[in-house]
Amino acid sequence: MSTVPKAAVVMGSDSDFPVLKKCIRILKEFGIETEVRVISAHRTPYEAEEFARNAEANGIGVIIAAAGKAAHLAGVLASYTILPVIGLPIKSSTMDGLDSLLSMVQMPKGIPVATVAIDGAENAAILAAQIKEKLKKQKKEMAEQVREKDRLMQEEARKI
Amino acid sequence: MSTVPKAAVVMGSDSDFPVLKKCIRILKEFGIETEVRVISAHRTPYEAEEFARNAEANGIGVIIAAAGKAAHLAGVLASYTILPVIGLPIKSSTMDGLDSLLSMVQMPKGIPVATVAIDGAENAAILAAQIKEKLKKQKKEMAEQVREKDRLMQEEARKI
Amino acid sequence: MSTVPKAAVVMGSDSDFPVLKKCIRILKEFGIETEVRVISAHRTPYEAEEFARNAEANGIGVIIAAAGKAAHLAGVLASYTILPVIGLPIKSSTMDGLDSLLSMVQMPKGIPVATVAIDGAENAAILAAQIKEKLKKQKKEMAEQVREKDRLMQEEARKI
Amino acid sequence: MSTVPKAAVVMGSDSDFPVLKKCIRILKEFGIETEVRVISAHRTPYEAEEFARNAEANGIGVIIAAAGKAAHLAGVLASYTILPVIGLPIKSSTMDGLDSLLSMVQMPKGIPVATVAIDGAENAAILAAQIKEKLKKQKKEMAEQVREKDRLMQEEARKI
Amino acid sequence: MSTVPKAAVVMGSDSDFPVLKKCIRILKEFGIETEVRVISAHRTPYEAEEFARNAEANGIGVIIAAAGKAAHLAGVLASYTILPVIGLPIKSSTMDGLDSLLSMVQMPKGIPVATVAIDGAENAAILAAQIKEKLKKQKKEMAEQVREKDRLMQEEARKI
Amino acid sequence: MSTVPKAAVVMGSDSDFPVLKKCIRILKEFGIETEVRVISAHRTPYEAEEFARNAEANGIGVIIAAAGKAAHLAGVLASYTILPVIGLPIKSSTMDGLDSLLSMVQMPKGIPVATVAIDGAENAAILAAQIKEKLKKQKKEMAEQVREKDRLMQEEARKI
Amino acid sequence: MSTVPKAAVVMGSDSDFPVLKKCIRILKEFGIETEVRVISAHRTPYEAEEFARNAEANGIGVIIAAAGKAAHLAGVLASYTILPVIGLPIKSSTMDGLDSLLSMVQMPKGIPVATVAIDGAENAAILAAQIKEKLKKQKKEMAEQVREKDRLMQEEARKI
Amino acid sequence: MSTVPKAAVVMGSDSDFPVLKKCIRILKEFGIETEVRVISAHRTPYEAEEFARNAEANGIGVIIAAAGKAAHLAGVLASYTILPVIGLPIKSSTMDGLDSLLSMVQMPKGIPVATVAIDGAENAAILAAQIKEKLKKQKKEMAEQVREKDRLMQEEARKI
Repeated sequence: MSTVPKAAVVMGSDSDFPVLKKCIRILKEFGIETEVRVISAHRTPYEAEEFARNAEANGIGVIIAAAGKAAHLAGVLASYTILPVIGLPIKSSTMDGLDSLLSMVQMPKGIPVATVAIDGAENAAILAAQIKEKLKKQKKEMAEQVREKDRLMQEEARKI
Repeated sequence: MSTVPKAAVVMGSDSDFPVLKKCIRILKEFGIETEVRVISAHRTPYEAEEFARNAEANGIGVIIAAAGKAAHLAGVLASYTILPVIGLPIKSSTMDGLDSLLSMVQMPKGIPVATVAIDGAENAAILAAQIKEKLKKQKKEMAEQVREKDRLMQEEARKI
Repeated sequence: MSTVPKAAVVMGSDSDFPVLKKCIRILKEFGIETEVRVISAHRTPYEAEEFARNAEANGIGVIIAAAGKAAHLAGVLASYTILPVIGLPIKSSTMDGLDSLLSMVQMPKGIPVATVAIDGAENAAILAAQIKEKLKKQKKEMAEQVREKDRLMQEEARKI
Repeated sequence: MSTVPKAAVVMGSDSDFPVLKKCIRILKEFGIETEVRVISAHRTPYEAEEFARNAEANGIGVIIAAAGKAAHLAGVLASYTILPVIGLPIKSSTMDGLDSLLSMVQMPKGIPVATVAIDGAENAAILAAQIKEKLKKQKKEMAEQVREKDRLMQEEARKI
Repeated sequence: MSTVPKAAVVMGSDSDFPVLKKCIRILKEFGIETEVRVISAHRTPYEAEEFARNAEANGIGVIIAAAGKAAHLAGVLASYTILPVIGLPIKSSTMDGLDSLLSMVQMPKGIPVATVAIDGAENAAILAAQIKEKLKKQKKEMAEQVREKDRLMQEEARKI
Repeated sequence: MSTVPKAAVVMGSDSDFPVLKKCIRILKEFGIETEVRVISAHRTPYEAEEFARNAEANGIGVIIAAAGKAAHLAGVLASYTILPVIGLPIKSSTMDGLDSLLSMVQMPKGIPVATVAIDGAENAAILAAQIKEKLKKQKKEMAEQVREKDRLMQEEARKI
Repeated sequence: MSTVPKAAVVMGSDSDFPVLKKCIRILKEFGIETEVRVISAHRTPYEAEEFARNAEANGIGVIIAAAGKAAHLAGVLASYTILPVIGLPIKSSTMDGLDSLLSMVQMPKGIPVATVAIDGAENAAILAAQIKEKLKKQKKEMAEQVREKDRLMQEEARKI
Repeated sequence: MSTVPKAAVVMGSDSDFPVLKKCIRILKEFGIETEVRVISAHRTPYEAEEFARNAEANGIGVIIAAAGKAAHLAGVLASYTILPVIGLPIKSSTMDGLDSLLSMVQMPKGIPVATVAIDGAENAAILAAQIKEKLKKQKKEMAEQVREKDRLMQEEARKI
């Protein structure tokens, strides 16, 4: 497993954890070693800086950053590292996630954040895996599941 | 002038300068000593940290931070200082300023940014002045100007 | 405590009170004397005018104004005083708070409202405190809380 | 003409005048006596109050209030009078008029503002006329114009 | 009561009735005779036309039209009458009322709809009353209620 | 019934089925033979291609495609067939359906998708029927239902 | 050509004509007989009704309705006919077309409008053609054009 | 250079080329071999499929897909490959880029698209480089440029 990079999953608040569980689980299924952190870009800025600056040296290959509202976490981490940073916008109690999405994706020239869907925790994990890994097996299983649902639904629809 | 705090005007990119000129000019009219900086939250994060951490020691009493798109600058500065930070969202080429506004105003619990209108450079300056200064004279002049326009417009309207 | 300004918390409707409780509590924790009012910009305009005009004379140093929908309260109070006015947009039953936010933050040239996040009651209080007070102690405690959650989460994540 | 109410057209800034010209012209075509004012809800609040409080006594039957951005003017006037207030949201340089629209139309319970389309100056005038006047003639002419354009367009389309 | 115009309250669907109850009740409190109808601009267009064309002859002085989604009802009625039409946008299950609001308020030149807030049923009634009636008594009571809440809240806040 | 085209109802995920039931039921009421499928544009792209390419040969005359979020299904099917494709945007857990709507309706030049309302399952079915069928009977019944509700509501309103 | 239905292109205002030219041209290229009309849902409602009621009897098989702002035209026509109605939202001077789109697509249950992209005039024509015609030839040509541009671009990119 | 993956830049229309030039130039500056294609997800779906399916075998390591409006290109390519796909939403003539952004970023579970800012061509290139390369040198230069602008601006501001 030494050729697979370690992933870091950083959340801005422990209230983001329920959404992130699916992300962490998928990373584990891919056999990707994962470090999970709660670091607030605004309340613990020194930890954010230290974490991001040393990430590469600590064997991390990709960072997933999840945050809501004015979601600066991904951008702040990206400003201290050259590792790819995946942004996961979290829907909070107002604005239906639009604030998080725009705060993450509209990064200025020079510092990209690879943003996935609002609350799209699984896709953040899969994108992390894509960066270094082959995903062929998972892709086949996923297609098979849709096909199975297709068969079931056709039966269901006949009964309406 | 020693009782008036020094203000800092920080812009995320020198392309924000045309909008900020009005802000700087008003600060000067109020007789507030002003320090102007270009600091990118993402491209020069160490400068951002150093600037904000030492701002109070350097005699700064209020920080105006202007940025566009995923406008993190105000929030990042606010995370390193306990000085009040005024956020000035800049309209960029897409999303009509909504991205900048939400990225600035929707700050998480604990780290406020005092946000003014999109491209509202004058108001950022006036808010900075309000924090320590009396504005009575300016308020009267402003009302007088509107009254003058009121008189002119009533004449104008008679000619339609 | 005579050097600390009295704060006023004004709400447009008593239905805003549940959101504002957190604001009032934090102001009390900071030891800031606080006056709480229900004043409607539209239904009691004379009270609004009288309150704002006399605020400074009554020993108030900063006004927090909370309102929803077409949230004019902050702007109306700001038009009668030179004290800094902090606007707290309240999410109501439609438009997810966007109406309140835009009605507060998009103030015209000359009359700023220092707007915080939708329903961001804590930040309104902290911003009020920042204007005159040192917040060092609170900032350290907040960082310590995030660090504690970071430690717990890393343990939690190992069990997934 | 004594049975036709006098209309007041109030604008928040003289920069709104180009849009309002069409409104004033239509009021004149209907033979409605019209008073034109520049009154800022925020910069000249005392004039706003005085104007609205005395409007009815001064023979005004309906008020058209035009403003942009955080467009409080209509609501502020409505809070001091029981005359019907027509709100005309003006598009400004950011947010494409959505800020003005929401700031005008989302009025709280008790104080309605009869809002028309963004920059819909003609409709503000017609709505004012509808409140007391018969519009039959204008309606017929308008239909005739559309019918004429219909005839021309059918000829035009044949040439494509 | 013969000088007070009869009001018509028209809803696009009977599912709008719960919101409209408050509107109808206020009209009754003002002593305004009210006719309540369910007419769909799209499913019963002939009834819509007939109703609007004959409204004035039938003693109606103002029409309140409530509808959701692509809310055409107000505009369609307005196209067949010169009576003032008040549009009440109803929030439906998607888009948080923005669709209804824009469909009502953005009327083209020539046919205004006097739009009130999303689900603002009370304001629709009050606006209807304003067009012909004096509202002085109601305005005083409303202010008194806010003042009473102000007194209660100040007591409440002392206990926090 | 051989002159009536067979309809296909394709959903991107079986979680869309509750919304689609109403669509399928209406198609059955019109006597339109209907094929129901679960095909994901992204997880089973080969099935999507194969289905759309062979749809016409398989006796399908119109395709209804329902999907949420970045709703590509309708556009992807439309790219492989010249049959009319009706897009039904499904509201998902974030963005209130705006993402689905824009992803479906904003198709580039050359490949239209006939988009109906968010979650507008009945209208998708009726539009499919309109393309080849006469709907006179249904239209009359629908008008009769509104008239019946009109009668009931007038009684109800008298009791308020 | 008697099996190809005649198409009607109806615009709410002659200012929509520049956008519609592309639509009319494509219909002509498909050899579809086309009737072009200017009919305002609001200013000429009787023409709208009469046109839609008699459309089928007049040999029209599909109606394309283009309108901006509170774009009711498509819905109003659809309420008087069982022919499929294609809605073409036109971008006007405010709200970037969102108002037109929502006013057209969010039709209530029972009366669908087949909505295409904002200003998507070509797609309205192609959708009309799809309803009765084979489009194989056009589809091949379109693909060939993209392939040609692909070849040119690859050459171009080598020169950067 | 054999360890650096080849990048593919795919645009949905040649009208996207002006925005993409900056992307291609940066990839070249990083010494990354780049293949540029015009492939429409909707008008040339077979090319899209073939390109994506064979991308990995053809030595491509990362795909940048740029598209506007209902921007399906990135998602369609991602459905046929396990390579990481970077989505670059292009602002088109309506909706200010919001349609492109939502169509790209809101991908369903299983198929991520790494979305960057609207028209953020440089960031798409840098993100591609981050996936396999070290960017240390570029990061230092960028910081140096901002510092230089900071120095110049401070001089400039003194002259106001």
